[in-house]
Amino acid sequence: MAVQKPRSKTKEKILRTALALLNNEGEPNISSVDIAAVMEISPGNLYYHYKGKDTIIEELFADFEEELRLVLAAPINKPLAIEDNWIFLYIIFEEIYDFRFFFFNMTALLERIPALQPKFTRLLSLMQRTFMDVLGSLEESGHLVFRADEDRILSERLTAHFIYWLPYMQLRGSGGNPKSIIHEGVYSALSQITPYWGTDADPYAALLKDFKDEQTG
Amino acid sequence: MAVQKPRSKTKEKILRTALALLNNEGEPNISSVDIAAVMEISPGNLYYHYKGKDTIIEELFADFEEELRLVLAAPINKPLAIEDNWIFLYIIFEEIYDFRFFFFNMTALLERIPALQPKFTRLLSLMQRTFMDVLGSLEESGHLVFRADEDRILSERLTAHFIYWLPYMQLRGSGGNPKSIIHEGVYSALSQITPYWGTDADPYAALLKDFKDEQTG
Repeated sequence: MAVQKPRSKTKEKILRTALALLNNEGEPNISSVDIAAVMEISPGNLYYHYKGKDTIIEELFADFEEELRLVLAAPINKPLAIEDNWIFLYIIFEEIYDFRFFFFNMTALLERIPALQPKFTRLLSLMQRTFMDVLGSLEESGHLVFRADEDRILSERLTAHFIYWLPYMQLRGSGGNPKSIIHEGVYSALSQITPYWGTDADPYAALLKDFKDEQTG
Repeated sequence: MAVQKPRSKTKEKILRTALALLNNEGEPNISSVDIAAVMEISPGNLYYHYKGKDTIIEELFADFEEELRLVLAAPINKPLAIEDNWIFLYIIFEEIYDFRFFFFNMTALLERIPALQPKFTRLLSLMQRTFMDVLGSLEESGHLVFRADEDRILSERLTAHFIYWLPYMQLRGSGGNPKSIIHEGVYSALSQITPYWGTDADPYAALLKDFKDEQTG
């Protein structure tokens, strides 16, 4: 997703380099000196643009926030067709995967860079409210049936699912293919929604089929 | 849950003091000097028993592992009555809460103390298999109905739910009453199981009622 910002070419290149390094090597293993070295500029030159690694991380988080807000706004601007919900969840996971360094080291980063804490909390609230909206419109159209506050509980669980899926997969030893990690995450998210399906005969069968086609395709 | 180990009284007192400090003040904010100070012993005396904070954390993790294994063995030794599943989930959450410092800082601790990584991975596998067993026996008795691999996916989700619930509640700003945080976590776990209920008229109504009685009781 393209984001327009009044940034110099050098700043943009620093951010792209930093993001790749943080994602691939792990946030604790990368310093601003490493970023400068990969770019073949001096640490002083890097410092002229960004005052250290945490300033770069704050800027990357701002990019992540902007992109995720755009994604989350989609179903509010225009209700999703049933078959687009799968894609919607997929795109959210892809955004998270693009900035995965943050999710692998969330607790430490939020403690070290306190400015991120309220931003991330607001983003989580937005995610949860968006899931509530999506579930609500699927309920209104008669596709889902919720009792009591099942929709609220489910929207909270989906939010938690998205932010912890990547570190959970790592803990479980599934360090492999990113495509299948995201795919399994979407599948797991959808399988939390399908039990509330009210109308169709067996949406789960179709979901499973899609999943397997995609895995082998 | 009482754990018998051939430990000196001093060692036991060090572990209890450390656990309370780590849980209440947060792991990154506590040093071995702090632990010695609270116990009113010299850092040298503490060092005689445990060679630094991470050795204490390893020993505490061993306690956690032992206690959780005992809890998880319960439904394997003797299948749970339906009404005991709630209590089973509650006890798992209580164990996690008793060692919450670990879950609030999991990524950092697993990186800093590599010996914990395989132990924790094995514990997660055991948790997931136990949930599979419990779900399987509820399916055999005709209470739950699963299609395809819904039971596997659900057991993975429950495992992730348990290990990330406390940090998730903190991120969402629910820092309050521990009793209600655990209670909401159990409720959220049970609400993931009830949609697969096959027989009873409305187990969700009973679940909700229990939840509210407990909250106001």
